[in-house]
Amino acid sequence: MARETVVDSRQEILRTAARLFQQRGYDATSMNDVAAALKLSKGGLYHHFQSKDEILFEIMDHAMQITEERVLTPVRGIADPEERLRALIRLHIEVVLSPRDREITVMLHENHPLPPALRKRINSRKKEYIHFLENLMAEVQNEEVQNKEVQNKTRQSHSTKNKVSPRAAAFALLGMINWIYQWYKPEGDLQAQNLIPQFTDLIFGGIFA
Amino acid sequence: MARETVVDSRQEILRTAARLFQQRGYDATSMNDVAAALKLSKGGLYHHFQSKDEILFEIMDHAMQITEERVLTPVRGIADPEERLRALIRLHIEVVLSPRDREITVMLHENHPLPPALRKRINSRKKEYIHFLENLMAEVQNEEVQNKEVQNKTRQSHSTKNKVSPRAAAFALLGMINWIYQWYKPEGDLQAQNLIPQFTDLIFGGIFA
Repeated sequence: MARETVVDSRQEILRTAARLFQQRGYDATSMNDVAAALKLSKGGLYHHFQSKDEILFEIMDHAMQITEERVLTPVRGIADPEERLRALIRLHIEVVLSPRDREITVMLHENHPLPPALRKRINSRKKEYIHFLENLMAEVQNEEVQNKEVQNKTRQSHSTKNKVSPRAAAFALLGMINWIYQWYKPEGDLQAQNLIPQFTDLIFGGIFA
Repeated sequence: MARETVVDSRQEILRTAARLFQQRGYDATSMNDVAAALKLSKGGLYHHFQSKDEILFEIMDHAMQITEERVLTPVRGIADPEERLRALIRLHIEVVLSPRDREITVMLHENHPLPPALRKRINSRKKEYIHFLENLMAEVQNEEVQNKEVQNKTRQSHSTKNKVSPRAAAFALLGMINWIYQWYKPEGDLQAQNLIPQFTDLIFGGIFA
């Protein structure tokens, strides 16, 4: 079997399993159900994944991989912090709303406890993203403070100190974006093209308040 | 058995079940586990609740009850929209961080699918909260627009039109608050007393951006 076919079939298994987990619930879905939906024998499925926990971990890990490739990697190349934050908000919302990836990325919010070693690996990838975002918030706020000070030619003024900390702002943005799956409807009024500018305005208005 | 004792023991069952569901996962926890943790016979537990789904529904319903009693009811009495929104943000964060209620309210985020009739009842209570918040956002924005117009004595100006819609602002705030359980640590730097003013500044800065 060619390498590419193996990768493809692993990803196909993850995508199908993610869809079943969402429709029926993680625990109500058996390895048999996953195999049947893929027209695989149970042995064929176990050839790829040894347990349902392994499938759940691989779905979550793949979701973090998607987030890194589609959000973090492209924005790292943007020099200006404000533009970098604008791009991060846009790209993260696009990943969350992507019809192709939604069934994978939504599984990051599955509450089923993973074995501690696997949970640690997912949590460390999540922490990396949070730290990147927290540092970016700090950079954007600092840049704004410097611009204001140059404009005002004032001595160091307390009025330019931001009241919202980079950490609180980072968690607020993650909450806004990661909560979208709870209310989003493909037929609703709020879609990527109007949600992105509104959430961007909210965050920029908020962190400079 | 007196009425109060019955209510107390039902609530004690819900609280214990909620704690077990979070520690072990909903599906990995059996009715036997719940009964054992409460030192009840299985029959004693089934006397109160006919199924695990019924317990999950009652936990979620109780969580919405708590939110209505501690957030919606007190804020309805506040005449000024801006003060009403400030109070809502504060009270909702306090409910989410309350050590006593956290194990109940966090279950609102359990992804296990409920039977359709029960899911509908929870969803209609959630929708009521969202509509209240959306209307409140609109009121706060309108008040601000009117204040600005009075100050500026301008003809109706497009510059005072808010870019963030009440609906997007409502979902953003709910995401920020309901996501707290994902990152909150009782020993961390971000606690109610500094989180409340920061999230309040973020929202007010954002909706008037």
